[in-house]
Amino acid sequence: MAKVAIVMGSDSDLDVMSKAAAVLEGFGIEYEMNIISAHREPDVFFKWAEGLEEKGVKVVIAGAGMAAHLPGMSAALFPLPVIGVPLKSKSLSGEDALYSIVQMPPGIPVATMAIDGGKNAGIMAAKMLAIEDPGLLAKLKDFLGKQKEEVIAKDEKLKDIGYREYISRK
Amino acid sequence: MAKVAIVMGSDSDLDVMSKAAAVLEGFGIEYEMNIISAHREPDVFFKWAEGLEEKGVKVVIAGAGMAAHLPGMSAALFPLPVIGVPLKSKSLSGEDALYSIVQMPPGIPVATMAIDGGKNAGIMAAKMLAIEDPGLLAKLKDFLGKQKEEVIAKDEKLKDIGYREYISRK
Amino acid sequence: MAKVAIVMGSDSDLDVMSKAAAVLEGFGIEYEMNIISAHREPDVFFKWAEGLEEKGVKVVIAGAGMAAHLPGMSAALFPLPVIGVPLKSKSLSGEDALYSIVQMPPGIPVATMAIDGGKNAGIMAAKMLAIEDPGLLAKLKDFLGKQKEEVIAKDEKLKDIGYREYISRK
Amino acid sequence: MAKVAIVMGSDSDLDVMSKAAAVLEGFGIEYEMNIISAHREPDVFFKWAEGLEEKGVKVVIAGAGMAAHLPGMSAALFPLPVIGVPLKSKSLSGEDALYSIVQMPPGIPVATMAIDGGKNAGIMAAKMLAIEDPGLLAKLKDFLGKQKEEVIAKDEKLKDIGYREYISRK
Amino acid sequence: MAKVAIVMGSDSDLDVMSKAAAVLEGFGIEYEMNIISAHREPDVFFKWAEGLEEKGVKVVIAGAGMAAHLPGMSAALFPLPVIGVPLKSKSLSGEDALYSIVQMPPGIPVATMAIDGGKNAGIMAAKMLAIEDPGLLAKLKDFLGKQKEEVIAKDEKLKDIGYREYISRK
Amino acid sequence: MAKVAIVMGSDSDLDVMSKAAAVLEGFGIEYEMNIISAHREPDVFFKWAEGLEEKGVKVVIAGAGMAAHLPGMSAALFPLPVIGVPLKSKSLSGEDALYSIVQMPPGIPVATMAIDGGKNAGIMAAKMLAIEDPGLLAKLKDFLGKQKEEVIAKDEKLKDIGYREYISRK
Amino acid sequence: MAKVAIVMGSDSDLDVMSKAAAVLEGFGIEYEMNIISAHREPDVFFKWAEGLEEKGVKVVIAGAGMAAHLPGMSAALFPLPVIGVPLKSKSLSGEDALYSIVQMPPGIPVATMAIDGGKNAGIMAAKMLAIEDPGLLAKLKDFLGKQKEEVIAKDEKLKDIGYREYISRK
Amino acid sequence: MAKVAIVMGSDSDLDVMSKAAAVLEGFGIEYEMNIISAHREPDVFFKWAEGLEEKGVKVVIAGAGMAAHLPGMSAALFPLPVIGVPLKSKSLSGEDALYSIVQMPPGIPVATMAIDGGKNAGIMAAKMLAIEDPGLLAKLKDFLGKQKEEVIAKDEKLKDIGYREYISRK
Repeated sequence: MAKVAIVMGSDSDLDVMSKAAAVLEGFGIEYEMNIISAHREPDVFFKWAEGLEEKGVKVVIAGAGMAAHLPGMSAALFPLPVIGVPLKSKSLSGEDALYSIVQMPPGIPVATMAIDGGKNAGIMAAKMLAIEDPGLLAKLKDFLGKQKEEVIAKDEKLKDIGYREYISRK
Repeated sequence: MAKVAIVMGSDSDLDVMSKAAAVLEGFGIEYEMNIISAHREPDVFFKWAEGLEEKGVKVVIAGAGMAAHLPGMSAALFPLPVIGVPLKSKSLSGEDALYSIVQMPPGIPVATMAIDGGKNAGIMAAKMLAIEDPGLLAKLKDFLGKQKEEVIAKDEKLKDIGYREYISRK
Repeated sequence: MAKVAIVMGSDSDLDVMSKAAAVLEGFGIEYEMNIISAHREPDVFFKWAEGLEEKGVKVVIAGAGMAAHLPGMSAALFPLPVIGVPLKSKSLSGEDALYSIVQMPPGIPVATMAIDGGKNAGIMAAKMLAIEDPGLLAKLKDFLGKQKEEVIAKDEKLKDIGYREYISRK
Repeated sequence: MAKVAIVMGSDSDLDVMSKAAAVLEGFGIEYEMNIISAHREPDVFFKWAEGLEEKGVKVVIAGAGMAAHLPGMSAALFPLPVIGVPLKSKSLSGEDALYSIVQMPPGIPVATMAIDGGKNAGIMAAKMLAIEDPGLLAKLKDFLGKQKEEVIAKDEKLKDIGYREYISRK
Repeated sequence: MAKVAIVMGSDSDLDVMSKAAAVLEGFGIEYEMNIISAHREPDVFFKWAEGLEEKGVKVVIAGAGMAAHLPGMSAALFPLPVIGVPLKSKSLSGEDALYSIVQMPPGIPVATMAIDGGKNAGIMAAKMLAIEDPGLLAKLKDFLGKQKEEVIAKDEKLKDIGYREYISRK
Repeated sequence: MAKVAIVMGSDSDLDVMSKAAAVLEGFGIEYEMNIISAHREPDVFFKWAEGLEEKGVKVVIAGAGMAAHLPGMSAALFPLPVIGVPLKSKSLSGEDALYSIVQMPPGIPVATMAIDGGKNAGIMAAKMLAIEDPGLLAKLKDFLGKQKEEVIAKDEKLKDIGYREYISRK
Repeated sequence: MAKVAIVMGSDSDLDVMSKAAAVLEGFGIEYEMNIISAHREPDVFFKWAEGLEEKGVKVVIAGAGMAAHLPGMSAALFPLPVIGVPLKSKSLSGEDALYSIVQMPPGIPVATMAIDGGKNAGIMAAKMLAIEDPGLLAKLKDFLGKQKEEVIAKDEKLKDIGYREYISRK
Repeated sequence: MAKVAIVMGSDSDLDVMSKAAAVLEGFGIEYEMNIISAHREPDVFFKWAEGLEEKGVKVVIAGAGMAAHLPGMSAALFPLPVIGVPLKSKSLSGEDALYSIVQMPPGIPVATMAIDGGKNAGIMAAKMLAIEDPGLLAKLKDFLGKQKEEVIAKDEKLKDIGYREYISRK
């Protein structure tokens, strides 16, 4: 039974959005993954979004580029949290998708991530689910601990070999 | 029987959107005017948008601010032209609404007007309807002719009284 | 007899603007295609734009980059709808062309598409012509239906093979 | 026992951030409200942020303007969800605070709201807490239902009295 | 006989554009001043622009806001220098007009001034005419000398009375 | 003997730049304050900037708006640190001055403050001078301590009287 | 004897700025070309800029990127027209250089070209010199005529072979 | 004993930040170089930043991309000057990091460099240390003198071989 539903409007968004899936897998969180376009198949989208709560979905992660309506329209139909991921397209550096997702009017919020922030969307979903799940919270702290160790290891390597060698090995 | 449907998400948009209505009235074009929020009442919005074609509506004018989804979602549900009006809100100078409306992905276009361009939305709707309506086209040309005369009159006044006097009378 | 006139200021715009032509061909709509510069040959441009109505043209699609004047000046000379396509050039991500096209002053609207939105310009022209043409409207609905099926097929494929395999096949 | 901690860096942020508090009160959610500056008193801030989890706080709402570090630093210290509210200041229209909050690097997400989106921050916190709280979810649906009714009432009023009268009464 | 032609599309531009006129008067340069809209009366505009050279006009100063086409189209029709003044309108801080004027494609330059830079347009026109006019160049140097003296006087005043007193007298 | 030289191009900059002076006074740091325009009196500016080192000036604080060249040109002529303050003018929200000051090419840095950041310029100058001055460093720490206490007092007041009362007293 | 002086701050600007030189050569206008940095060698720059008038230079073309001060400082020292060319660098799409050049304060204008608009700078210089030089004006008209013929030829080719073939030959 | 501490949040910042190190080496200034993330290891970061003063560090150079908090948080913890380097990442051209670093609120300044301005950060640190170090100031002047000679050499080469040959040799 999926607790998180990932949705994107096009398969060109899959590279970024699959990072959210990978994070959820790492935490052992069940999810479903969908390619549904709010623009090209609004009826399919509506039925899907309205049915999420009954299926037991607790969090939606929606990614979209350009005039990105998928996160906001998901938030209009699904009462629990929606996380939005603005995707960078060829022009405007992703600023268009960012504004289309984050600037939601009062009443219907979307929890917006950085441009192309698929990985962070997965982590934010886990954080939301961890509110009432101490086991998941423990896993999250492990994950954050590993992130910390990676930086410490890089710092040690830099101090060990110096920046010239460090750069040449990259 | 309304040929044009004007829709906005909030009554704070009425000042700008009523300019479209005034233009349509000037051309004797029947229209309906609605406050419907795609975010707050998606089911109402869907039913309304899906029913437009059967009611005989030929053009939709949709105005919205911030993460403006109303024009794009109207275009997803209504097969004939949708004209979008980005509305300026308190922050970002209307750039957010402009991007959210104009940057529609391939397949679902919205005919986007200038920020707060309510009047132009009415004119554009009239132009679309004039494609097969010579009487309306004649009225449009009259309207454009009057616009021209107004500029000519201002130019004559400037030449008559000079810029200092012109400014002091403003 | 062309119902739609496509115009661009330079052959560097042809890649994007030909997508509008391809859409019109798909709908069986007659069109003409022109390279005319409002800046480099304003007299040629004026004569062309003023003659469009008499030739039976119903809609103009004008694409331009940088300080894009072609769509707005077409709208100043042709009384029926003008669709504008902002083209991305080397600097400023297409924001310059977008502003130069969409921010038309009251009285002379241009129906603006997304940056590099050539395909959507063709679809919008078809929508305008479909207002009084039930046969064309039927074709449009077919087209929209096919768009929908494509997304559904991608969603099924994703569910069938999973995101890792989907990405590796791209 | 507070479930939500609201924090802002200055009392000039109180007008916007108090809207989050008002929403939480409406839902009967316990909260604490703090003025703490990550820049001016980093030690106070650290101690506060590190102690939140033990106090039973489940969600943090952090608002900040300009180079807004408070939400991101809260997310660095508190393992459960942090909601960020970019505040508009005198220059740059709030774009500076938006980028400083939303563009968090991979690993440490902040759930970002619209510029000055204090009310939406309160709603998003309620949504997160409703994941495992059916009573709160029911209240949320009530709230969303009332939002819907307000729009419907405005639409009826518009249809009843017309836009001219509607505008004159504002 | 006017050597400089000032043109603007609307009388709302007169406050800024009259500063160019005042500068020209100060230098004793003959000028004409026009309100002509390239969008609303393209035929009037064309005839005017094409006739400038024969009338003896040497420099055009064109001011426009929003999708500002007047300077660029003047440059398309008049072979001598065109100076463009982007005007700030209600949205987008004048960035729209700036891009529409400065980003001219190769072949048709416009000498662009700062947003609302009417005064500088007058000075630049004088500089162009001074290339072959030593008397005008002498007047220009006088003008620049007076600008310098004004700053020196302010500096002396500041040193004389201190910043507190200086501010309180403003 | 002035250790810090404050310079601005116009007396309209005095409101912001005097905040730097007030900070320096608070620390007991000698300064001089000048209105000198790099554009209107480049010879005066050059002589002034080249003479600073000999006079014993250790830090320059330069504020400017629009195409702000004063900080960068000061850095070209004075070998010790130059602090730049971008000033907000009527259009473009201060983004023009910010870019003109911060985007210095490799070789000639300017230490750039926030838009209208006059107070911070004074503090940064004090920090630079405190590198080798333990007495000044002690004063700086006092100053930072007072900033901290102010925030703590506001937080206590908020907890004491609640946000409704706090707002009503503003 | 050079009538136009081209100046740039770095040899990385040479690709764009050499287009101005090529245009001047085409018109038979004498020019000098310099690499001088206002930031790295302000004394050299000052001496050069102050000596231009005596050498008989009538127009300066200055190109610069990032915090582009070279055009504005040239305008501060040389009383005749200065043409500015903003150069695109790695970040910010050239917007930084554009603002640093075009947003000159009242009193010291720079005639600003498009980003990377080296060719247009050469044409604008020729236009300025043509004000009192009928022979040069005739050459300019020839040049503009050739530009026109090129577009006409492309249009004919497009009509001859169609867009598919046209694109495939590119 | 390090006088300058360079810090970055990730080894992807090393290419830019190592340029600061190279400059410091050229001046013979002792420095330490660290990879520490304020987001991923706030406790490590705090301890490090709080210990800097005691270790004898006089200046911090902090580089960060996206929502760049490292420079501002260093300035909150370290009382002497902090130099910030905004790093360009994949989206938004580095504008996000620039705003996150430069727009510090009153009280806690960061001396901000250009986007990717690692080299200038090293030079600015040297300038700060040169305030009380005549030997270092002499080295700085040598360095600036060499920069000047490089430009002079390029100018001579351009005059010697002409721009066509110069470009072909690049």
